[in-house]
Amino acid sequence: LDYQHVQVPFEITLWIMLASLAKIGFHLYNKLPSVVPESCLLIFVGLIMGGIIYGLNDRSPPVMDSDIFFLYLLPPIVLDAGYFMPSRPFFENIGTILLYAVVGTIWNVFGIGFSLYGICQVKAFRLQDVSLLHNLLFGSLIAAVDPVAVLAVFEEIHVNEKLHILVFGESLLNDAVTVVLYTLFRSFCEMPTIKSMDVFAGVGKFFVVGLGGVLVGLSFGFTAAFTTRFTKDIRVIEPLFVFLYSYLSYLTAEMFHLSGIVAIISCAMGMKRYVEANISLKSHTTVKYFMKMWSSVSDTLIFIFLGVSTIGENHEWNWPYICFTVIFCLIWRALGVLVLTFFVNRFHVNTITSKDQFIIAYGGLRGAICFSLVFLLPDFHRKKLFIAATTVVILFTVFIQGMTIRPLVDLLAVKRKRESAPTVGEQIHIRFLDHLLAGIEDISGHWGQYYWKDK
Amino acid sequence: LDYQHVQVPFEITLWIMLASLAKIGFHLYNKLPSVVPESCLLIFVGLIMGGIIYGLNDRSPPVMDSDIFFLYLLPPIVLDAGYFMPSRPFFENIGTILLYAVVGTIWNVFGIGFSLYGICQVKAFRLQDVSLLHNLLFGSLIAAVDPVAVLAVFEEIHVNEKLHILVFGESLLNDAVTVVLYTLFRSFCEMPTIKSMDVFAGVGKFFVVGLGGVLVGLSFGFTAAFTTRFTKDIRVIEPLFVFLYSYLSYLTAEMFHLSGIVAIISCAMGMKRYVEANISLKSHTTVKYFMKMWSSVSDTLIFIFLGVSTIGENHEWNWPYICFTVIFCLIWRALGVLVLTFFVNRFHVNTITSKDQFIIAYGGLRGAICFSLVFLLPDFHRKKLFIAATTVVILFTVFIQGMTIRPLVDLLAVKRKRESAPTVGEQIHIRFLDHLLAGIEDISGHWGQYYWKDK
Repeated sequence: LDYQHVQVPFEITLWIMLASLAKIGFHLYNKLPSVVPESCLLIFVGLIMGGIIYGLNDRSPPVMDSDIFFLYLLPPIVLDAGYFMPSRPFFENIGTILLYAVVGTIWNVFGIGFSLYGICQVKAFRLQDVSLLHNLLFGSLIAAVDPVAVLAVFEEIHVNEKLHILVFGESLLNDAVTVVLYTLFRSFCEMPTIKSMDVFAGVGKFFVVGLGGVLVGLSFGFTAAFTTRFTKDIRVIEPLFVFLYSYLSYLTAEMFHLSGIVAIISCAMGMKRYVEANISLKSHTTVKYFMKMWSSVSDTLIFIFLGVSTIGENHEWNWPYICFTVIFCLIWRALGVLVLTFFVNRFHVNTITSKDQFIIAYGGLRGAICFSLVFLLPDFHRKKLFIAATTVVILFTVFIQGMTIRPLVDLLAVKRKRESAPTVGEQIHIRFLDHLLAGIEDISGHWGQYYWKDK
Repeated sequence: LDYQHVQVPFEITLWIMLASLAKIGFHLYNKLPSVVPESCLLIFVGLIMGGIIYGLNDRSPPVMDSDIFFLYLLPPIVLDAGYFMPSRPFFENIGTILLYAVVGTIWNVFGIGFSLYGICQVKAFRLQDVSLLHNLLFGSLIAAVDPVAVLAVFEEIHVNEKLHILVFGESLLNDAVTVVLYTLFRSFCEMPTIKSMDVFAGVGKFFVVGLGGVLVGLSFGFTAAFTTRFTKDIRVIEPLFVFLYSYLSYLTAEMFHLSGIVAIISCAMGMKRYVEANISLKSHTTVKYFMKMWSSVSDTLIFIFLGVSTIGENHEWNWPYICFTVIFCLIWRALGVLVLTFFVNRFHVNTITSKDQFIIAYGGLRGAICFSLVFLLPDFHRKKLFIAATTVVILFTVFIQGMTIRPLVDLLAVKRKRESAPTVGEQIHIRFLDHLLAGIEDISGHWGQYYWKDK
């Protein structure tokens, strides 16, 4: 028996197998997935697995390695999200999405950070040693809505397209803000004094990280589109290029500390139209199916690992801090959505209804990104408290919010996604109106969205 | 810049990218691939890459890691080969294939081993320190025909189906013999004395390794077939099971020192029919395309790495030994094919013509398996000589034989593969004759191939 020799691939294969079998298992009982979201079930499986490992070995099970998460598990999901992003609603709402993603996330980071600092001043809680900077750092990692968790829940509740793209787009694009604020506060924590210069550099860095990500992504995307022009004779490796270039864009962005998520999304959205025209139909089916398969497996593994990593002894249970974290996460998100939507609605004809606002605020699920970031924190004496708080916030949002959002959507009668594809007549009308509005905008000299879409 | 962080996936992606781009490059010039086989071109690219690395770093470029080869690069190719194995010609010729694979390989191992030992006795060559056991060990790794090299060349020359399956089937099934003889001689080399018991144990081990591989493969194959019965609700992860179970069968077989190649082929052939009936059409396209893509990439990487690893300073150029190795490889293979075919033809109506025999003997290409095995040898003072001899044999067979086999096939007017699919009339006739012959065999009480096929 030579287990050492095959250990690495064998264990990876077994984990993936476990994940796939768990998925099959849930679907055998048709009633279960309609009540409990799959993500909750998977975390539950992970908790059981973690408990078994903990019981057998008598020590904490291995936590999800942040490197594995960011380098191998996250990219397939984001690639899938970017490649199948419905581009029309996305670009129609890009302003609102960016507002939520950038201003909303900054609002949450500072709101949560400062109010938790306030809590730390209460002597009875014995938290006076947690500095403002540490609270802000914690805020920067806990504030971001998680695309994986959002996708897992929103794919099952079928809300209308606009609502879906608002929450999901925000969860993707806030990565740039998270990357900047997280690295900024982390380096501030290690600096002896902070000059005002550093703060301005941070603001400038945000544009570098975000726009740099877009630039890296687009350049790889167009290279991919160009490469697929030459694959007529060897159809068999066409799908490969889609995956290789997207992954390279992600890795390159990560290498330069840009936003990898923004890069891979730009890459996927940039190349999609050209690649689809160049590659054969069968290659396209392969790309589509493999992307879906890969992201589904990654997603499953992430939730299982989340569960496994929760078990163990690296938590410090200071309940006041943890409870207030959950409460502040909810309050600041609700406030942020209300204030931002107030401004958005003043400039739009299609306003966001108060029901939609509630779902946007309530759909702010946290997930594996926070979890990986908190483990990446430099060692300091309160790290275990932050880990515990993050774990509780994730479990609270995924379990409580994730399980109640579907009944709430039913209760509030939120507008659902239409099931059928638009008829030819509808398509013609939509196209006709687009051209008409572009013409009107052109005549009136107003450069609106239709003008740009027509370009 | 944080290169350390992304190094591993980044470099892997770049290697795959290089391989794919090289493939595209060759196909842009339509004339090149019709003269030179792709495998030669890829080795050539590898040689250039190796030269560049050697020139820049002033030390030997990294050689292909045997673990990477056996655990990650070989399985996709063998899986592809097994899954798309034409089962009718394979089972019709299974006896002949096994004869070539088992008896032929043993014949080659001992022939090459003993005659090289003879060469070592010539004082002028200064090789007296190479023992008989070391020569046999070397024979066991150099004797086996390589499936990757055979596939790469034979896919381009389109010989008739029977000839193709004879050479290709042999190259796959001889793995069991190679595994047994290689590990046997390796352990003999480390033993102080060899008892006759050990030799008998070796013979018994052959059956364990071969049949054990079949058993492991079939059990995983049927589990896979069974699992896909429950995937009706989640079509998206269906293709995954095909890959996971096949890979697990390979790893499990390797773990128990059984023949991994035999296991994965049995697994693929065992599950194919059931899986195809269970999974959706689109999943099936994904499986097919992804398998082809994966094996094509692995194949490309193997040949490039072969080239890269050739450059460097780990060779000992004892020319008499090397030249005689090449000559003996050719002679013993030719003799073996002649003798074995003589017996085969006595018991078959469809005889193997002398032209076919020549192509079978000439198509005995060596490749990356020998190369990986020679690097796995335990360190001893003549290891570099064996590495040099293996490299020369591989380059000789792939370049000289691989490039001349196509003109020879044309020259000898070897029967080609028919290009068109059989008509419905032909299919009906074939099916009718099958049933008729099965009936005749049944009446006459003779349990021939038709009897078993009808079961």
